[in-house]
Amino acid sequence: MRLALNQATAKHWPLDEAIAGCLGAGLAGIGLWRDQVADFGFDRAVRAVAASGLPVTSLCRGGFFQEDGWYDDNRRAIDEAAALGAPVLVLVSGGLGARTLDDARAHVGEAIGRLVPHALEAGVRLAIEPLHPMYCADRCVVSTLGQALDLAAPHPSAAVGVVIDTYHLWWDDRVWAQLEQAGDRIACFQLADWVTPLPEGVLLGRGLPGQGCVPMRRFRDAVDAVGFSGPIEVEIFNEALWRRPGPEILADVVASYHAALG
Amino acid sequence: MRLALNQATAKHWPLDEAIAGCLGAGLAGIGLWRDQVADFGFDRAVRAVAASGLPVTSLCRGGFFQEDGWYDDNRRAIDEAAALGAPVLVLVSGGLGARTLDDARAHVGEAIGRLVPHALEAGVRLAIEPLHPMYCADRCVVSTLGQALDLAAPHPSAAVGVVIDTYHLWWDDRVWAQLEQAGDRIACFQLADWVTPLPEGVLLGRGLPGQGCVPMRRFRDAVDAVGFSGPIEVEIFNEALWRRPGPEILADVVASYHAALG
Repeated sequence: MRLALNQATAKHWPLDEAIAGCLGAGLAGIGLWRDQVADFGFDRAVRAVAASGLPVTSLCRGGFFQEDGWYDDNRRAIDEAAALGAPVLVLVSGGLGARTLDDARAHVGEAIGRLVPHALEAGVRLAIEPLHPMYCADRCVVSTLGQALDLAAPHPSAAVGVVIDTYHLWWDDRVWAQLEQAGDRIACFQLADWVTPLPEGVLLGRGLPGQGCVPMRRFRDAVDAVGFSGPIEVEIFNEALWRRPGPEILADVVASYHAALG
Repeated sequence: MRLALNQATAKHWPLDEAIAGCLGAGLAGIGLWRDQVADFGFDRAVRAVAASGLPVTSLCRGGFFQEDGWYDDNRRAIDEAAALGAPVLVLVSGGLGARTLDDARAHVGEAIGRLVPHALEAGVRLAIEPLHPMYCADRCVVSTLGQALDLAAPHPSAAVGVVIDTYHLWWDDRVWAQLEQAGDRIACFQLADWVTPLPEGVLLGRGLPGQGCVPMRRFRDAVDAVGFSGPIEVEIFNEALWRRPGPEILADVVASYHAALG
């Protein structure tokens, strides 16, 4: 079983209950979010995770490099990932802020370079997540896997990898060739499906695997083909899903995962 | 004066009044939409345009190749463009329909190939418009200028060109190099600005030049650098703008155009 629940899929499920649910369902682990961990209580979360034995697959999110204080905040995020036992810190690199697009993208590269020593020291891998181009202005100027791989290239693979999230990459005709070149850079693999019409703000309209048009098996086969054997997170931002009880969400995640990839 | 008003920017302005407004403001022409022309009355529109002497810069839209009846409908669109004196028919190529993404993109190429003879005969240039990747599933599987240029390449430039719409292309790090290669393929150049947050459905949230983050001058300079000297349409889908009187919309279009490109 490679399936892991990303905590954002069940945003209102208390962490201890989510951990118990994942263990009960035989999942490979859980991906955590800093805001949800903070809501639960950071020290309490560290203890709950450690006591459970459930692997933490990733921590979201570092990044947002356009904001003042990005350096200190990302160092803290690395430390939090280490304390939680998360091998990977997902970087959502931030929008334009006051910069032009070219300058904002260059700044992301510089920022990651400045964080690499601390990440190596902490044993946490930075994972650059390309987000769909519709987020380029305000959320993430890294819009394609090609850009993410170029940003990672100057650094050791143990320090900087990339996130493959099907929701963000499915539209790109070049993604299959880029995946063939991704090699050991794949640090995190996440499933979400593309569903239309998009809601206002375009953040909370994602579908469970199989609800939309993304070829999930093609992505799974492509990451496997370059040697990725890690967990497969299901990460769905969807307000209607969030309103349901955690155990129901988890049951749907498990069922949709098997239906889409089985 | 290269500015042309795309009719979609003033969706509820009757065509005869819009033509008079454009002539009064010294514009280079007007870009038309088939649905708005049909609402006004096709024959009446043909007469109004011809009598005015105002150039028609383009007709939107052909395409939607995923739909049954696409061949006949696109032949009609070509004929309508010819009757209206529009040198260019803009193609919005359509979404996935029942196809996979690869198959849908291949189908677009085949469809365009089937239309080329009729377009040449009618003296109407087909202009492939890459739409932002957020429209890939349901509106246009052609998502980048690179894809549009590849689709155009097998055909004579007089028969098939591309549309450069700033709203759809600004996020793409490769667009500047692709524009350098676009040569005489540029058939239509349209300005719209990227404004967040995006509204539900992501269609009607575009901004006037200068209201968002798109580098308008860089685009203008890039198309000019490869020899494009045609009209520059302002095409804004925005419900708030549409509610205003046509003359006010036109005044804002003129002012924002000069502020953004002057």
